[in-house]
Amino acid sequence: MDTPLAEPVAAALINAVNRGDTGYALAGRLPEAFAGFAARQYGWHPDASAARLVPDVMSGIVEVLQIISEPGDRVVVNTPGYPPFFYWLERIGRRVVQSPLAVGPDGHRLDVDRLERDFAAGARVYLLCNPHNPTGLVLTRDELTRVAELADRYHVRVVVDEILAPLTYPGARHVPFPSLDSPAAARSIALVSASKAWNIAGLKAALAVPGPAAHADVAAIHEEVSEGAGLLGVLAAEAAFTHGDPWLRRLITALDGNRRLLAAQLADHLPGVGHHPPRAGYVAWLDCRALGWGDDPAQVFLRQGKVGLSSGLRFGPEGRGFVRLNFATAPERLTEAVTRMAAARAQADERPA
Amino acid sequence: MDTPLAEPVAAALINAVNRGDTGYALAGRLPEAFAGFAARQYGWHPDASAARLVPDVMSGIVEVLQIISEPGDRVVVNTPGYPPFFYWLERIGRRVVQSPLAVGPDGHRLDVDRLERDFAAGARVYLLCNPHNPTGLVLTRDELTRVAELADRYHVRVVVDEILAPLTYPGARHVPFPSLDSPAAARSIALVSASKAWNIAGLKAALAVPGPAAHADVAAIHEEVSEGAGLLGVLAAEAAFTHGDPWLRRLITALDGNRRLLAAQLADHLPGVGHHPPRAGYVAWLDCRALGWGDDPAQVFLRQGKVGLSSGLRFGPEGRGFVRLNFATAPERLTEAVTRMAAARAQADERPA
Repeated sequence: MDTPLAEPVAAALINAVNRGDTGYALAGRLPEAFAGFAARQYGWHPDASAARLVPDVMSGIVEVLQIISEPGDRVVVNTPGYPPFFYWLERIGRRVVQSPLAVGPDGHRLDVDRLERDFAAGARVYLLCNPHNPTGLVLTRDELTRVAELADRYHVRVVVDEILAPLTYPGARHVPFPSLDSPAAARSIALVSASKAWNIAGLKAALAVPGPAAHADVAAIHEEVSEGAGLLGVLAAEAAFTHGDPWLRRLITALDGNRRLLAAQLADHLPGVGHHPPRAGYVAWLDCRALGWGDDPAQVFLRQGKVGLSSGLRFGPEGRGFVRLNFATAPERLTEAVTRMAAARAQADERPA
Repeated sequence: MDTPLAEPVAAALINAVNRGDTGYALAGRLPEAFAGFAARQYGWHPDASAARLVPDVMSGIVEVLQIISEPGDRVVVNTPGYPPFFYWLERIGRRVVQSPLAVGPDGHRLDVDRLERDFAAGARVYLLCNPHNPTGLVLTRDELTRVAELADRYHVRVVVDEILAPLTYPGARHVPFPSLDSPAAARSIALVSASKAWNIAGLKAALAVPGPAAHADVAAIHEEVSEGAGLLGVLAAEAAFTHGDPWLRRLITALDGNRRLLAAQLADHLPGVGHHPPRAGYVAWLDCRALGWGDDPAQVFLRQGKVGLSSGLRFGPEGRGFVRLNFATAPERLTEAVTRMAAARAQADERPA
């Protein structure tokens, strides 16, 4: 995001630098700080003493999967999906089962029937990303309850990336999966971090937070793994989860403004581009197939419009013809980006790419 | 270490916090900064463009080993050895071949005959730690040249942890292994970092630096791995390697004072403890076997003297009866530690542990 740091986060970092507190990381009070945030925001009371420090959500997922599954096991991932999932799952020898989201008039939604078929075919783990990257989908309590029922029926473990949860917009509501009342939820493990919401992804700290029946799995994360976390990430996240609510509220208001601005600008200037505003997060998943630019419209936008977008191809086959746009920037920059994208389109219509 | 940060490092960090520059890490100018430091300090001119960012030296070793060797391959490690080596090599399915250092009247030295036998038995990689943790051994150019000859003869790849190199004391001289003129050196890969010397281990940045014939191996480190590094670690290390020489010189002078103080204190108050001052780094490797406290004297020092030392047992079988003491603290604290250790000994002599 293009944003200054939250004041309590910046203060915690500057204090640490002035103290020379830059050695190896320990979890310190971060688990308690997260538990306090979870209680205030979601009414969830995770057991802080059961959480383990990991360097980031992705490495936490990799650790947890290596504890609760075996090489060759099937891991279900919704697509379009966060690109590093594909790299790391392959790297640790798990078989990715792509379970596409459904698309309806209101945007993407979970395809529960498809998910059931994928579970029934022999999945070991469902790697759920909720809120979802790149679509901004936030699953409802009913949908998550349905997921838990299926996971119970088919003996699938649920690992859930909840990194975007603090960035849920008004109108949607994040429900932490381990907070549900079901055996599958009790056996689930959430990966959480302050990294996206407070813009500190480069500081390297996240937590693996188990449901009540998954404590032993999370306790099996080796201390050598926790030591890969960044101390300044821990201190920043602790400050964010403890004192960062007011800043987060202001941030969400600003991002919500951008979200609406982007929707209006796209409708005005790029009516052929399909778009449903995300319910969480600061990326927009844009369906550019109607532009007729083939599988990778991001290349055309970069070449013709000098606008940097993520190629949808990195998100799996469902990303063909899509781009991902980051709107966490100044409104003028966002307007400029859409203007350039529209100009690129006009240009390309004149001189086919 | 108990030390304030170097001024240029603190300034780089505070500037980044004030800019809100805390997103995902890129290597930026860190490789060039390291190359400049290497040229000034060692007369080594590594190709900065061939270096790759990794989160820390240990994770860099793990990545490199997964690129240049296969599960089941033998990896030679000198013992006593840095404890995380054992955990991570086992975790990635490599077979650790423990190659004990020799011990002479001047302390530990490389046992070249033993190393040759271990190479000849079918090693794939030699994971060299130079300067060595925990003994502070700094291999001479002649010794390293001999290692390179053996590596050539037995087709062993050399991966070298040079994290302690900036902390080499006057009287010894660090020679980067990839700077040697031999095929094995050209095919070697060094892992380097500012983390130990400038006390920023919690900020998570290191580099894999290949010899001239190992560029492709290091280029195979995936960008997902580099993204696990910490941005503040990169910025701090860049400042350290570029502007940190004067602070480093002062630090080494202070540490050298502690090193001498410790030797004098031990000789005065704990004459039964064997000790050879390290030639690099800020840990002392203390032979406590004559105390008759069994395999783990660190437990007795903690219980009887409230002094926290690393148990030698973590460093492999050669660590039985040893402890590792960190002397990077205020001289008064160091004196206090030795006083307490001596008191613990007196107490234990009265009431056997």
